[in-house]
Amino acid sequence: MKRLVCAVLAAGITTASAFAQQPQAPRLVSPEVMADGRVTFRLNAPKAEEVLLSGEFLDGNRKFEKGPDGIWAVTVGPIEPEIYHYNFTIDGVRTIDPANPQLKTGSTPSTISSVLEIKTPSPAFYDAQPVPHGDIRTHWYQSKSLNSIRRLTVYTPPGYDKATSRYPVLYLFHGANADENAWYRLGRANLILDNLIAAGKITPFVAVMPFGYGGQQQGENTAKFGKDLIEDVIPFIQATYRVFPDREHRAIVGLSMGGGQSLTIGLNNLDLFSYVGGFSAAIGNAANFSKTFAPLVNHADAANGKLKLLWVGCGTEDSLFGASKAFSEFLTANHIKHTFRETGGAHTWMVWRRYLNEISPLLFR
Amino acid sequence: MKRLVCAVLAAGITTASAFAQQPQAPRLVSPEVMADGRVTFRLNAPKAEEVLLSGEFLDGNRKFEKGPDGIWAVTVGPIEPEIYHYNFTIDGVRTIDPANPQLKTGSTPSTISSVLEIKTPSPAFYDAQPVPHGDIRTHWYQSKSLNSIRRLTVYTPPGYDKATSRYPVLYLFHGANADENAWYRLGRANLILDNLIAAGKITPFVAVMPFGYGGQQQGENTAKFGKDLIEDVIPFIQATYRVFPDREHRAIVGLSMGGGQSLTIGLNNLDLFSYVGGFSAAIGNAANFSKTFAPLVNHADAANGKLKLLWVGCGTEDSLFGASKAFSEFLTANHIKHTFRETGGAHTWMVWRRYLNEISPLLFR
Repeated sequence: MKRLVCAVLAAGITTASAFAQQPQAPRLVSPEVMADGRVTFRLNAPKAEEVLLSGEFLDGNRKFEKGPDGIWAVTVGPIEPEIYHYNFTIDGVRTIDPANPQLKTGSTPSTISSVLEIKTPSPAFYDAQPVPHGDIRTHWYQSKSLNSIRRLTVYTPPGYDKATSRYPVLYLFHGANADENAWYRLGRANLILDNLIAAGKITPFVAVMPFGYGGQQQGENTAKFGKDLIEDVIPFIQATYRVFPDREHRAIVGLSMGGGQSLTIGLNNLDLFSYVGGFSAAIGNAANFSKTFAPLVNHADAANGKLKLLWVGCGTEDSLFGASKAFSEFLTANHIKHTFRETGGAHTWMVWRRYLNEISPLLFR
Repeated sequence: MKRLVCAVLAAGITTASAFAQQPQAPRLVSPEVMADGRVTFRLNAPKAEEVLLSGEFLDGNRKFEKGPDGIWAVTVGPIEPEIYHYNFTIDGVRTIDPANPQLKTGSTPSTISSVLEIKTPSPAFYDAQPVPHGDIRTHWYQSKSLNSIRRLTVYTPPGYDKATSRYPVLYLFHGANADENAWYRLGRANLILDNLIAAGKITPFVAVMPFGYGGQQQGENTAKFGKDLIEDVIPFIQATYRVFPDREHRAIVGLSMGGGQSLTIGLNNLDLFSYVGGFSAAIGNAANFSKTFAPLVNHADAANGKLKLLWVGCGTEDSLFGASKAFSEFLTANHIKHTFRETGGAHTWMVWRRYLNEISPLLFR
């Protein structure tokens, strides 16, 4: 078994607290991606009785086998090149792969996973490539509507600082259990947009990624988040960035919980937004559509005139697929023009990265 | 036992992949900070045989007790208000507290811990307060010297975008196993500087936090990192930000591995830097000081004329304390003016946050 002892990082850099000085297990390689795309996961756990692997590349769990040295291992695949999330369950405790520094984090513990990236032979659309790169800015702002200090992430396209022209803006929302970093750390929104800009496929735009929780309850949450968005975030962006102030240059898109937010807020505020998208949207119960979207369907012709894009996408393996399909049927029944994009895939960032790559060329055209 | 079922975040936001749909244990509250400052940690692990707690608030480990429901718990403290890192060891596997979304991450797995924050009654110097806030910018840049795309974090003080004046620059380095996010996510550099600026205690400056690994071996690492710093990072910052171009407005400070880097690079490049600091610096073997710092000590008078500040700080509980003390003695023996700051504390972010708060008012004055 191949083990990597990180002498490099340890040499001369002794950490000193009693906490940090605790003996640590020798470093294993986990995950180890082999040339044929199979992946071996390892865990040093001589006392454990059962170790399970779960991940976006598997249906269900796979059991690790314990070696005579107390090191558990399991090999799966070949796995297609992608970025996946996975967990180990050690004697019933779902946790991370302790040998892998790449972690998925968020606003709740249920989101914590390890990250497995299997590289494509040539760069993927979400890879950092030698092209001009935009920046990610994190702002701490005082939300008057929520009476708290909140964080906000903003992507500016390459050359923004040197330019003098104005840019359109995409407001881009994360899902449940995530936070304002999710779209760039997990979704790689900045690298996807950098690559699309370098290829000349999109109109460069600023992307604004707010923190998606505003209230303690589900209905309240969208209302309070929407109030923060409209009364605090948008004015802050208009005052801080060189962006166009009109609805023709403003898009609103989100995934899962954020898809429910983008569709609900966007379609009820067509004076503010002209491009609206929902990815695997948690759009709620179809019985409520008529009420939630009354202003839209009661003025369908006006809405169709204002909407430059209404894009609803979901993977057929996603348990929210039925909701998206029902919402599309509701829109059709009410003569609201839209695109319903039915794809493969489940409720994962693999789908959402592709959707961002697909929808961005349709914006601000 | 108090359990929090996060119905809020789960309601209507069903995640859909087989992976995400795996049953999860009911959510426990861990850590739970009580009014008297004691803290209870909990883990749902009916099958585990031994669970240990380690952390910066403890000497050694504490054993959890298993309850009849399979829920393990341990109460420690009272603990002083601070931000601490801790780990659970479950049947010999050192991992995180799976119920706590706050994680410390970095560039190697050994750095992964959970975060316990005990709030002070009034805001601490590192807390987000209702004052003007600076921004954090993350750049992806092409390093010509290292032939790779690297990330770089930059703090701009409040009002930077609207201002027209130039700013001084602090180059601020992280330690081993960390990354370019460490100084703001763990060190809260931005909030510390925001609060100092609001109190009128410092000259506002831009802080540049590069990724600290350049090479595969220890000596090579500092040399390659220094090459990237001088040939790529500094020119990039000069071209991108409204900063002064002269050595009088440039400081270089780092912690641990980054302290070795800031002292080595800074004191060998006094044409570039006039303020130099090392926090708990991994400054290496005293036998090498004469060679590493030959240009400094061979021209002590010239160096003293150029150095506006040379600040070396270390906690007495830090295993690197001896190295800092030896370095101070070496400087004294060679008539190099400096401040040697001996404090309490170990090799922790608690010390480094305080050092940043202490050194910043000494810069650019």
